[in-house]
Amino acid sequence: MINRINHVAIVVEDLDAALRFWRDALGLPLSKTEANPGENVDIAFLPLGESEIELLEPTDPDSGIGKYLAKKGQGMHHLCVEVDDIDAVIARLTGHGVEMINETPRVRDEGTRYAFVHPKSAGGVLVELYELPE
Amino acid sequence: MINRINHVAIVVEDLDAALRFWRDALGLPLSKTEANPGENVDIAFLPLGESEIELLEPTDPDSGIGKYLAKKGQGMHHLCVEVDDIDAVIARLTGHGVEMINETPRVRDEGTRYAFVHPKSAGGVLVELYELPE
Repeated sequence: MINRINHVAIVVEDLDAALRFWRDALGLPLSKTEANPGENVDIAFLPLGESEIELLEPTDPDSGIGKYLAKKGQGMHHLCVEVDDIDAVIARLTGHGVEMINETPRVRDEGTRYAFVHPKSAGGVLVELYELPE
Repeated sequence: MINRINHVAIVVEDLDAALRFWRDALGLPLSKTEANPGENVDIAFLPLGESEIELLEPTDPDSGIGKYLAKKGQGMHHLCVEVDDIDAVIARLTGHGVEMINETPRVRDEGTRYAFVHPKSAGGVLVELYELPE
C-alpha cells in the first residue's frame, strides 16, 4: 500500500548554494529546476535511487515555506511517501484518529493526487502522501 | 556513486506513540526494534521501499539526541545516503570545502562504515553516509 519514499523536501535559503553541496560536492544529478509561483517556491529535483531530493527556495517570505524558513531555518521540511490508493490510506489514517491537513486530495497539473498529514499526528514530521497518475 | 536513501531518521519522544502512527495507522511493517546504549537511543526500523524509516527515542536527556529533542522537538533528524566508496565520497566532499563531523569513517559491529557531514555544509541537513559491508 505504501510503496516508497517519493521525495525528501529540504528548505534552503539559496538554491545555488544548496546545489553546490547536493550536486557539485555530493555528485547527485540535477534532473530539473522549476518555478512554482502557486506555492511561492523555486524547486530543484535531484533523483536519488527510487526517490528524489527536492530543494525548495521560498520566493516570498510571507508564504508558508518562507515563514517556515524564517522560524526554523534550513533543513528537512517534509517527507513524501508514495501510495497506490490515497483515498484508502487517508480513510485508514483518519480511522486511527490521525489529523490530516487536507482530507480531500488535491491534484497537480500532471495528475498526481496529494495530501498532507498534520505533523502533530506524525511525531513532528510533515508527511505528504502521493498517488501518481496511472 | 550515491545509490539510494538508506534511511530517514526521526527523533520521537515516545517510540510506542510514534509506532501508532507509522506502523498502525500508516501501515508500514516494523522489522525490528533495538536498544543502542552506546548512542543512548532505542530505535525502531520500518522498511519503506529500498529505504527505511528509523524512529529514535533518546534514553538519556543529556545525550546528543536527547538534547536535540529538548531543543528542536520531534521531527526528522538526519538523512542517510548509501554510497559505494565512502572514502572516495569523503575525499570529494572535503575537496569541495565541505566540513565533515568525522572525516574518518566509524565502523558499526556488522561492518557498515559511516560518517556525518556537518549540517552547516549541507544546508541545515545532518547527512550521514553509509558504506555497507560487502
